[in-house]
Amino acid sequence: MSKVAVLGAGSWGTALSIVLADNGHDVRLWTHSKDQAEIINSTHKNEKYLEIMIPEKIKAYHVLEEALEDVSDIILVVPTKAIREVCNDLNKIVNHPVRITHASKGIEPGTLKRVSQLIDEEMDSYKYEDIVVLSGPSHAEEVAMRQPTTVTVASINEENAKGAQELFFNDAFRVYTSNDVIGIELGGALKNIIALGAGISDGLGYGDNAKAALITRGLAEITRLGTSLGANPLSFLGLPGVGDLIVTCTSVHSRNWRAGNLLGKGRNLNEVLDQMGMVVEGVRTAKAAYQFASEQKVEMPITNGIYEILFNDKKPREVVEQLMNRNKREEMDDLATLLRNRYTR
Amino acid sequence: MSKVAVLGAGSWGTALSIVLADNGHDVRLWTHSKDQAEIINSTHKNEKYLEIMIPEKIKAYHVLEEALEDVSDIILVVPTKAIREVCNDLNKIVNHPVRITHASKGIEPGTLKRVSQLIDEEMDSYKYEDIVVLSGPSHAEEVAMRQPTTVTVASINEENAKGAQELFFNDAFRVYTSNDVIGIELGGALKNIIALGAGISDGLGYGDNAKAALITRGLAEITRLGTSLGANPLSFLGLPGVGDLIVTCTSVHSRNWRAGNLLGKGRNLNEVLDQMGMVVEGVRTAKAAYQFASEQKVEMPITNGIYEILFNDKKPREVVEQLMNRNKREEMDDLATLLRNRYTR
Repeated sequence: MSKVAVLGAGSWGTALSIVLADNGHDVRLWTHSKDQAEIINSTHKNEKYLEIMIPEKIKAYHVLEEALEDVSDIILVVPTKAIREVCNDLNKIVNHPVRITHASKGIEPGTLKRVSQLIDEEMDSYKYEDIVVLSGPSHAEEVAMRQPTTVTVASINEENAKGAQELFFNDAFRVYTSNDVIGIELGGALKNIIALGAGISDGLGYGDNAKAALITRGLAEITRLGTSLGANPLSFLGLPGVGDLIVTCTSVHSRNWRAGNLLGKGRNLNEVLDQMGMVVEGVRTAKAAYQFASEQKVEMPITNGIYEILFNDKKPREVVEQLMNRNKREEMDDLATLLRNRYTR
Repeated sequence: MSKVAVLGAGSWGTALSIVLADNGHDVRLWTHSKDQAEIINSTHKNEKYLEIMIPEKIKAYHVLEEALEDVSDIILVVPTKAIREVCNDLNKIVNHPVRITHASKGIEPGTLKRVSQLIDEEMDSYKYEDIVVLSGPSHAEEVAMRQPTTVTVASINEENAKGAQELFFNDAFRVYTSNDVIGIELGGALKNIIALGAGISDGLGYGDNAKAALITRGLAEITRLGTSLGANPLSFLGLPGVGDLIVTCTSVHSRNWRAGNLLGKGRNLNEVLDQMGMVVEGVRTAKAAYQFASEQKVEMPITNGIYEILFNDKKPREVVEQLMNRNKREEMDDLATLLRNRYTR
């Protein structure tokens, strides 16, 4: 049994807390909102995010020092844009050995940094090699209901990956390990761009054939960018790639899909974000990926199209028609080159 | 403009006829049923399979000789189990140069042969190298409604692949080419097994997380079998692999998913097939793949589980629990080995 602090009480942080509590750990769920912490502790619900009852042994905190006392594990589940601030605080408070696992799916626009790089920059005493990332096809709602789910944990430090696997593993929540931190982080982040696209396609009234083509080509595109950033292309074919892409693109649970759907129906970005009232990571990630693809000359037609819809008010139907009318050519040329390069280096 | 015979007036044959008619070709749609041919010609509908009106220029035939007169292209869209019989007839009738494209998704149990191998065996004068296969993520219903769709045509004969691409290509129906006949055929056939599994998972009441994991692991499994049969593993990552898998596993249009769904809800195979009233290719393909995997010692836990449900009355819930409880291990080991072998040979 471990003492674990889960930082971030959105739907995913709450769901992961439930997994940890089911495994017998002492779970402290931290939120920056005093009101939210009090409501969770008195009602054992977190209704804005999840409808299910939370086990009573999960205690909510809004004072970070208290949540972190004596913990052996920190699970970071705050939105990407809050990572630097929270880690800066952690850096001042934590002075005993801990293992840090993050489950945030995003990239920082401007710097194009992954979450583990942000953690590394903000925390003096914690090594990049020791950071663990958790990702995979996992709607929080289903995890909270103990529906069967599989995820991957990755770390350069194999001990830490295995430790995190042990911490979360149970009958309903299956955890695989990997050492490809870059691939697992980028798979989880970049797939949100394609989920926006899938939502746009559905919002425009296109069918399953169009969406499947978009997801397949989107997979090739994010694999291309991911590999140029140092990821193992195979990670994009596993649970945190294809698996997460499927779950995010084909389900109404997904907030990125929902945001895309509203865009496809003709709303603009501000209206969509107002209506959602939650963080839509894909929007920031699309900006970051667009910027990177332009600089590095990586071909990302779907991402570029989505960027144009989000930030330049281009009409979704126009973008989809442009994508459909690209030249005929042989399938999978790029991915073949990419894998061949990897294995014949 | 070409004269084209489409053999098989199920939903897919009818939808492909509509694409060809839209492209200005002279389309003869053949069915073994005299009644069905008469109904199509008088009502311009094929209601058992599709609800949409069929262009009047599509003529239905039930006498094979008449349908084949002077055609430059034959499109074979009969169920896999009828391929030998129809090709045997073709062999006696066709005595002028034609191009044969098939769009049937199955494997012959017992012999474990692909459709192009069956055509090759039955037709004396037609070379295996010249056969074209058409496959990809494509619900017939959506193709018939001119919804955007992308497919792949593959042939060892590059001219023939390009010719078939030209024949079908239009604004709504985008066609890519490939030379991996084995991969494109096996992707289309084997994905139906995983679609049965996705239906079973949904029928049991499991959620999107479980289904995404099943699809991802299923993809690795069919890639493994496909590669051992000579396919290019990359074909499984393109439109006829991942793409078709997504469309078939996540849509209620799919008859394999629907059959699986009924199995998951507790019906046995005979009850399901009675209720469906249409060919469910995945059932025969599961038997073929099971047989092959046993002989060749290819690890296919999902296929084996589905085989047990179909033919040995094993309880679906028991099978899913067994699959979930396999050992923890590193992700993607097999696929990595497979791709490495390919590129470092």
